[in-house]
Amino acid sequence: MIVNPEIEKYLESLHRFNDPVLEKMERLAQKLNFPIVGRQVGMFLYILTKQKKPSLVVELGSGFGYSGYWFAKGLDRGLVALIDYKEENINKAKDFFKEAGIQNRALFFTGDAVEVARQFQDIDILFLDLEKSRYLEAVEKLKNNLSEDALIIADNVLWHGKVVDENPDKKTKAIKEFNEYMFRNFNSVILPIRDGVLLAMKKSI
Amino acid sequence: MIVNPEIEKYLESLHRFNDPVLEKMERLAQKLNFPIVGRQVGMFLYILTKQKKPSLVVELGSGFGYSGYWFAKGLDRGLVALIDYKEENINKAKDFFKEAGIQNRALFFTGDAVEVARQFQDIDILFLDLEKSRYLEAVEKLKNNLSEDALIIADNVLWHGKVVDENPDKKTKAIKEFNEYMFRNFNSVILPIRDGVLLAMKKSI
Repeated sequence: MIVNPEIEKYLESLHRFNDPVLEKMERLAQKLNFPIVGRQVGMFLYILTKQKKPSLVVELGSGFGYSGYWFAKGLDRGLVALIDYKEENINKAKDFFKEAGIQNRALFFTGDAVEVARQFQDIDILFLDLEKSRYLEAVEKLKNNLSEDALIIADNVLWHGKVVDENPDKKTKAIKEFNEYMFRNFNSVILPIRDGVLLAMKKSI
Repeated sequence: MIVNPEIEKYLESLHRFNDPVLEKMERLAQKLNFPIVGRQVGMFLYILTKQKKPSLVVELGSGFGYSGYWFAKGLDRGLVALIDYKEENINKAKDFFKEAGIQNRALFFTGDAVEVARQFQDIDILFLDLEKSRYLEAVEKLKNNLSEDALIIADNVLWHGKVVDENPDKKTKAIKEFNEYMFRNFNSVILPIRDGVLLAMKKSI
């Protein structure tokens, strides 16, 4: 357990936001048992995007576009690049974005997320939600593709709370190693919303 | 309880940041049993400031300057206004800022925080950490003093987890009312770090 379930319920009860496409995505996630970031993290990504006003957001591991949807909604101008290794997911994302009329704010790619992302320069927000064992590799390979004040956001960094297990499994170990790497090499903070969200930027303090 | 104490301990263990003035402030807080936001929230405020690049941050309830210190550190240009009703606190804040060589990034005021803040226009970040029963009044009185994309940040909005009490006391009720008001009138999210931090901005979705 990460957050007291009663608190979690309270936090969820406060969100009264209606959006038919978003609700459709949430129903699909439930039906497929597909992990999505949910409304709390979604609104957080939205607020961060509105505040930062990025020109380019790049997502590694977009699934069918739930987090990308919140980023896109938060863009005044600029683009979000959605990348997933499954064409089926990306096709669904395209459909949802079209239905919401925000397809012009997005680019869609199928392939290895890290390799696809390397074609971009000046990434303002890099969102990590791919295979957990690849987080560290992703940051190392893409750190020269970031803009000066880029924000790195990583999902699932508390891994269902397993980061405090006495005998962590291989995946958990990889996440812990990633967290330590990020705190050593960047200014970082982990927010215990949902499954843990890490925020990081270039070390300046 | 808000967050699993083991997770809390893990999160704290990751912060390896050294700063003699900050450590002095932390020791003073411990000695006086004075509530400060701590390193996790501090680093979060720092990252938000670096990302947003505000011209003016206004704090309601600065204590002896711990949160203000993180804001000031995050400012590339611009100012943070520290306000507290106790002159003794503000004098300590001045000394700490001077010792750290960042006094030129700050303005210091003693008085009723809401009344002092009303003299400012175009506040980019409004930080609420005053008497909890006054949060709602503060936002209502200051909403016309905010800049277009202003970020409102409020501390202690989960109030030691009491927001889920079956029979909440008066102060807890005031905080719950504030949270509901913020989710109704702004785009808001509550992050369960430490005692709960609310982020909000003008409704755009």
